[in-house]
This record gives sequence, C-alpha cells and structure tokens, in this order.
Amino acid sequence: MKLNCDVGESFASWSKGDDQLIMPYLDMANIACGFHASDPDTMSKTVALAKAHNVSIGAHPGYADLQGFGRRSIAHSQQQIVHLTLYQVGALQGICRLHRTQVDYIKPHGALYNDMMQDIELYSAMLQAASILNLPLMILATERSDYVQLAKQANVTLIHEGFADRRYGANKQLAPRSLSGAVLEDVKHVEHQAKAMLNKQSFKSIDQQDIRLHADSLCLHGDNANALVFAKCLRRLIDDQQQ
Amino acid sequence: MKLNCDVGESFASWSKGDDQLIMPYLDMANIACGFHASDPDTMSKTVALAKAHNVSIGAHPGYADLQGFGRRSIAHSQQQIVHLTLYQVGALQGICRLHRTQVDYIKPHGALYNDMMQDIELYSAMLQAASILNLPLMILATERSDYVQLAKQANVTLIHEGFADRRYGANKQLAPRSLSGAVLEDVKHVEHQAKAMLNKQSFKSIDQQDIRLHADSLCLHGDNANALVFAKCLRRLIDDQQQ
Amino acid sequence: MKLNCDVGESFASWSKGDDQLIMPYLDMANIACGFHASDPDTMSKTVALAKAHNVSIGAHPGYADLQGFGRRSIAHSQQQIVHLTLYQVGALQGICRLHRTQVDYIKPHGALYNDMMQDIELYSAMLQAASILNLPLMILATERSDYVQLAKQANVTLIHEGFADRRYGANKQLAPRSLSGAVLEDVKHVEHQAKAMLNKQSFKSIDQQDIRLHADSLCLHGDNANALVFAKCLRRLIDDQQQ
Amino acid sequence: MKLNCDVGESFASWSKGDDQLIMPYLDMANIACGFHASDPDTMSKTVALAKAHNVSIGAHPGYADLQGFGRRSIAHSQQQIVHLTLYQVGALQGICRLHRTQVDYIKPHGALYNDMMQDIELYSAMLQAASILNLPLMILATERSDYVQLAKQANVTLIHEGFADRRYGANKQLAPRSLSGAVLEDVKHVEHQAKAMLNKQSFKSIDQQDIRLHADSLCLHGDNANALVFAKCLRRLIDDQQQ
Repeated sequence: MKLNCDVGESFASWSKGDDQLIMPYLDMANIACGFHASDPDTMSKTVALAKAHNVSIGAHPGYADLQGFGRRSIAHSQQQIVHLTLYQVGALQGICRLHRTQVDYIKPHGALYNDMMQDIELYSAMLQAASILNLPLMILATERSDYVQLAKQANVTLIHEGFADRRYGANKQLAPRSLSGAVLEDVKHVEHQAKAMLNKQSFKSIDQQDIRLHADSLCLHGDNANALVFAKCLRRLIDDQQQ
Repeated sequence: MKLNCDVGESFASWSKGDDQLIMPYLDMANIACGFHASDPDTMSKTVALAKAHNVSIGAHPGYADLQGFGRRSIAHSQQQIVHLTLYQVGALQGICRLHRTQVDYIKPHGALYNDMMQDIELYSAMLQAASILNLPLMILATERSDYVQLAKQANVTLIHEGFADRRYGANKQLAPRSLSGAVLEDVKHVEHQAKAMLNKQSFKSIDQQDIRLHADSLCLHGDNANALVFAKCLRRLIDDQQQ
Repeated sequence: MKLNCDVGESFASWSKGDDQLIMPYLDMANIACGFHASDPDTMSKTVALAKAHNVSIGAHPGYADLQGFGRRSIAHSQQQIVHLTLYQVGALQGICRLHRTQVDYIKPHGALYNDMMQDIELYSAMLQAASILNLPLMILATERSDYVQLAKQANVTLIHEGFADRRYGANKQLAPRSLSGAVLEDVKHVEHQAKAMLNKQSFKSIDQQDIRLHADSLCLHGDNANALVFAKCLRRLIDDQQQ
Repeated sequence: MKLNCDVGESFASWSKGDDQLIMPYLDMANIACGFHASDPDTMSKTVALAKAHNVSIGAHPGYADLQGFGRRSIAHSQQQIVHLTLYQVGALQGICRLHRTQVDYIKPHGALYNDMMQDIELYSAMLQAASILNLPLMILATERSDYVQLAKQANVTLIHEGFADRRYGANKQLAPRSLSGAVLEDVKHVEHQAKAMLNKQSFKSIDQQDIRLHADSLCLHGDNANALVFAKCLRRLIDDQQQ
C-alpha cells in the first residue's frame, strides 16, 4: 500500500499547501502541471523536492481552469482530452529531465478525475493518453468491470486508490461532499477506515452497508487542515503493516 | 541548406497563417508550444501536418505572452528560461508521441530568440535546456566565437539560420525592422540574397559592406503577405542547388 | 426592429470576423469584453468603429474561456455571475469613456447566454447585474412569463431577440444545432422567417407548428460564411418596413 | 497625511496578504484589478472589506502578468497603456456599484508604477486615462517639475506618496532594492523616516544627503513580514499628528 498526495499546487507568487512538511511522509506525489495550478518554476521545485525524499512522481493534469482550480467540469471531446493530457504530462517529463528523474504514473485532477470516473468515453481518452506514454493510470478503486476491461485492452496498468477520509456509497463511489458526514474529520475515523483498506477488510458505507475495497494506494488530502496529522497516521499504519 | 518556417501559430478558435499551403515547401517546421501561440489541439494538428509532409519538427518555445504574441521581452532568470523551455519542448514531445514522431530541434520564438542573441546568459540557459533534452539549437548565423564556444562546451549542436528577406548589419546581426529597407519585399531581392547564402558568397549589408554568412537553414516568414511566393522561390533555389 | 450582431471577437494578434464590413448594416453591436474573446486594444478599436457608424453598443460578457470561445458551460454561483458581469461591463464602460460614448445594453455570450435561458437562477443573477448597472438585458424572445415577471421585479428592461437563421421548437426555444435543418443557410429561408418576425406573423417551427415571436431585435451571426449577404438582406427588410 | 496599502492581491483559490488584519489601519486601499492579481470575486470581497472599514478605494491596475505578479516591465504603446488602465479601472468601478461605493483614485502597480516614474511618455498615457476617468493619480513624491506640469495640463490631481520603509536617493527616487540598506526593516528606522515625512522635515538619503519630501500619503507594504507592526506604528503617528 502506497500513500499518495496532490502537491505542487502553488501558482506563480501564490503559495498553497505545505509540500515541505508533507513530502517526507509520501510514497507518491501527484504534481500539478500548469493548467489548474502550478507553472514551470513551481513544477521544477516540486520535482526536486519529491526526488530529494525519494517519492515517486505522478503527473497530475487538469482542466485549463486556474480560476476554478480545475474543480469545474468543462466539456471536451475525447481527442481534446488526449491532447491536454499528453501536453501536461509531456511538460512535466521535460522538467523531470532537469532533475534526472522521470514521471512514473498519471493521476487526473479534480473535475477531470471525477468526469473520468463518470464518463467512460473520457476514461477511454485518458487510457489512450496513458497507453501512448506507456504510463500507469491512477483511478478510483471502484473495481467496475468495464473500467478494468478497457484498461486491459489498452494495455494500461491501473493503480486503484482509496480515500481514508471520505465515506463511500454502497457502489464504492465516493459519497458527495454535500452529504452530511461524507468527509471524515476525526483522525480516529480516518485511521479506522484506512486500517480496513490496508487489511482488505470490510468497513461501513455512508448508508451502513458493508463494503470492501482493493486499493493499491491511499490518497491524502494535502489541503486538509489536519493534513500533517493524517499523513503521520497513515504513514505509520502503512509502515507497521509492511513489517 | 534547409528551409524553415514558424507554423502552428493559431490559437483556440483563432486561426493564423496558411500552414496547409506552406508546409509542402518546408524542410523544418518551428511549431509553437502554447505560451505565445497555439494550444494542445492546434499543436496536434500541426504535428500531424508536418509529419504528412515529411517535415522535421522543431519546438518553438516563447515567452508566456499571448497578448504580445511573444514579441515583447519579459525578464527571466536563467533558471526560469531553462524551466519554460523544458516545459514547452516537453509538451510538444508529449503531443508528438500521439503521432509517432519526435521533436528534432529547438528554435526559440520572437523576443526570446532576440534576447538569446543579445544576452549570453540567456543563451547559456537555452543551451542548458537543449543539452538536457539532447536536441540541437537553432540560432542566428552570426558566427560569434563566444556563442560557438559555449555550445561546444555544452555539447549542443547549433543550427545556424540566415534570413533571405532581411538586410543585415556588417556585424551579421539583423538590421532592426525600424530601419528603412531592413525588410526585403521584392522577391528578386530575396532571391538574390538567398542565392548568396546558398553559395556561401558575399552579399551587401544594409550599409553596403560585403558580408558572407554560413547558414545551415533559411528562415521563411510565414506571416508575410508574399509567404507562398517566397516559399516556392526558396524551395526551387535549394532544390536546384542540391541536384 | 433592430439588427444586432456579435462583433469585436478578435484576440490580441488573432483576427476574427469582418467587423469593418458588417458594422455599417447594424443597429446594435454586441462587443466582447475580454473573457471569451477580445482585449483592451481590440475593445477600443471596436467601440470606435461602432461609434463611427452610429451603432448602439452592447456589452457582451462571457465565461472566462478563451480556449472554448465562451461556448462551454462552466459552473458559477449566482454571486460569481454578478461579479463577472459587472467586471466585464464595467471594463467596456471604461473603454467607452475614451471614445465619449457609453454601453447601452447587456447581451451575454455563448454558453452564458444559453445557461441564462435554461437556468432561472443564473438569469436572476444576470438581472441583478443589469439592475445594478441600470442597463437593459437582451434575452431570447421566448416570452416565458416567469422570465418576464422577474425582470419587472428587478426593474430591468428586456430586449427580446429573434433569430432569422435558426429554426425554433414549438416552445419558442432554438432547435439545437445538432438537429438536421436547425440552421438556415439559404438566404431565401432566412428572409422568409425574418419577414414573419418583422410583421409579427406566424412561421413554421422545426416540427411544423405555427409559432409567432415578438422580437425587438434580430440577431445576425457574424461568423457565418454568408454574414454579409444576410446583413444586407435583413437591413433592407427592416428599412423597408420602417418606411 | 493618509496611509495607503496594496490589498486584494489574492487570486482565485490562492490567498495572499492579511487584508482582514491590515484594512482597519488604512485610509486608502489600492485594490488589484485582475491583470497582475485578483479576479472579479476577490475584487468584490475586497471592495466590501474596504467599505466596511470606511477606507477610500483606489484602482491598482498592472501589467497583464500573473506569472510575474506585475513586477516585470512589458513594452506597451501609449495607447495600450490608456486601454489597459481604462479596462481595469472600469472593471473595478463595475464591482464597486454592487457595493454602492466608487473608485476614488488610481495607483498603478509594480512595474507599471516604476515605468511611469521612469518614462514620461508612459506617465502621459496614465494621465490621459486618469483625466478621462476624472480621477486623481497617485505617483512617487519626486516633485519633478515636468511631471507636475503635465498633470496640471491634463487637469489631473496628483497624490504624492512617500515610503517610510525604503531609503531614497538624493534625487528623491527610491534606492533600488538591490542596494544594501535600501529596505528599512527596523520599525524604529521606519518610524523615524515617517515622522520626518509627516513633519515635512529633512531625513537622510541612502548616500547621507539631507532630503525633504512633500507627501500626501504614506505607502505601507502589505507583503512585509512586519506589515501589521508597521501599520499600527504609522497609524498612530498619523493620528497623533492630526490631533
């Protein structure tokens, strides 16, 4: 089990997130690529930080929407999705060469990620981009068979991620943030759900069903007020399990 | 001798240039990378067109200035120049993978190109980027020994380009456009200067000195009203010489 | 009956539309405000052109989406709609002061216009902006009673517009462009529908119902290949009627 | 004597500055207008805050350069300077109408401000914009007679500002930040220089000359680590003097 987190989300002279504090606890860093956040200088700084802590680098492409931080859906054709993904991942690969390192996987950001999980055509476009770049794609651990099947056809490795700080529906989709209780804020609840995921045991969905998730990676929300507390907690759980 | 031209300078729904008409006459296409012009969709379309005509693909990075089309100097540190170049060339490389082709060289655009020829620190940063990417760099055929020397140290191949439609100073720099007669508009004058460059013979500078240029490539201005006429003329000259 | 058209849709060095040719035939010019197209220089040039032809100036605000030319919906809160409208109309008012003229009305652009006609909350926000600025608002001549009622409450004058080159549904909404026959391309068909609108007579909807529209203004699509032909035709019809 | 400060410099989801803490101590708030920082939502929030604290609102236009925070010179024609100023001030005026308040003056930002003080043509363009909008213009208290004369001709009121936390040259220009000692960091030194400005007494330039400044307003740097300490100190000095 790996711990992943969105980082490198500063923009120009505006800073966001505590990358310096969080990075030491991560296995995988999802690095913004300049469309919803970041810029070439911030990307270089973030790649250097990830490399210094031996953290795997993921490209984190998003919709071109600084104003909305990539959290608003914007209609695109499949071709446009392929293009914007190749552009952003390629740009991060260019920056990585400065630091003699490389991009290890792709995880779409915000609305692009959500749209990918809702819209199988958009997901297919993302698979096409991942296949062209020969990189694994991180998606939500829903285990939908059509999603798994398409990845196999495209010869793309999937990395399934789970969220320890979000409640799930019985269908293994995230409960919408608008639902009361959808976001776990108590570190004990987060720890409980994380443990279940680590041990592949069942835990309760938001509507009190027993669900079980097979996740390769746990996602930490870096913009959470408790991000550092959660990071330490999840790191310890993962390390304990690996002993 | 190769013929190069800036292409792919449309942006979103705004079109610019007659790439369809010009591309068949080119050897090298300098493709804009989204900072001063273009976008992922336009880049993909342009790469496909270049590949269809068997034209070598150059990354054409510029300052992030859509409003000024990359023709206005904007102060950057050396590090920032490295970053913006790696970002833009990397992005084009990402797009090229969709079309199973690759970036063959780098030619900076507009003010970035001019600043590179004026400011040896900026030139050094550009060499660093070219070296990291292991790509040749196209510069003005001034044959300045310090420029040649630095490229050797950085292990970067230089492609020297000449302009058939611009008058030169005696120092082999381009005469500023503001000078009367600095831009050649008569195809006969353009042809005359191109022939001299092709045959490595001397021609007259704007102040009537005899100068001689060793150019590997001739640059065609695609935004010229006579671009197609010049393209045909220069193509014919080059083809004739190669027989 | 007035003839209105979207103009000033160039951006930076990229040109779009034949404003010089179209402007003489217009009564009302919907001028882009920099979010989906245009920039301060283009706006100034366009305002000067409108004034020279004695054409009424409308602010044409859109979503901040150069890449999509404001034709893609982007989720906004009501407050955000008020803000982006006040910002863009205010900006055009600033430019108008240079030319000793003023903004006479507001017509939202593209997806913002469509969303306003679909989403009464967004429409309410637009009314709030129009009310604050004390300017009339141009909307589609659907005569929906809830829309008319809200405008009265907000004390905003509505300008109802009809489209001579688009087929309607029986509900007086535009038939989606994706439907076959939704866009009229034959100038005789355009003329026929325009005449009906001018004379407040019924005409056929796309599903062969008789509908009747009460429009204050006819919209001309300036980006149509036949824009100039249509402009002359509609101008003549309107002038004939006014004699 | 009035205390002014740059505020409203957040952008989209990125926050900058402690406007909530600083605003209560100000007389004049220079509010960013979306080109180098801010956006319509941030502008609205900042205008509301200024109004709540009864602080006079200044438009703070800058070059269109989010990446450089408006601190890099970008070449513009005089006309372009007029346009970008009218656009940005007009936009803020639009936002102000929502809050039933108005823009009281113009203070250019960053490189636009510096360029205005170095380049009398750019200054003339700024005067033209201020004259058209019938607003005072804030400039550096250099008392250059040509600058004062041009403002009189344009019928524009000047607001002269002094800097309590920056050393001056003997010519009453700010010593460049690159010079050692150019920025005062000790609150006692800041207080000393502020007192001299308040009492129109002489103080030492960076090269130990006695200079005297006639300033209408003192500028506080809100991005200084000590901004709140300085704000309280300058507020007290100004209030004491006015008793």
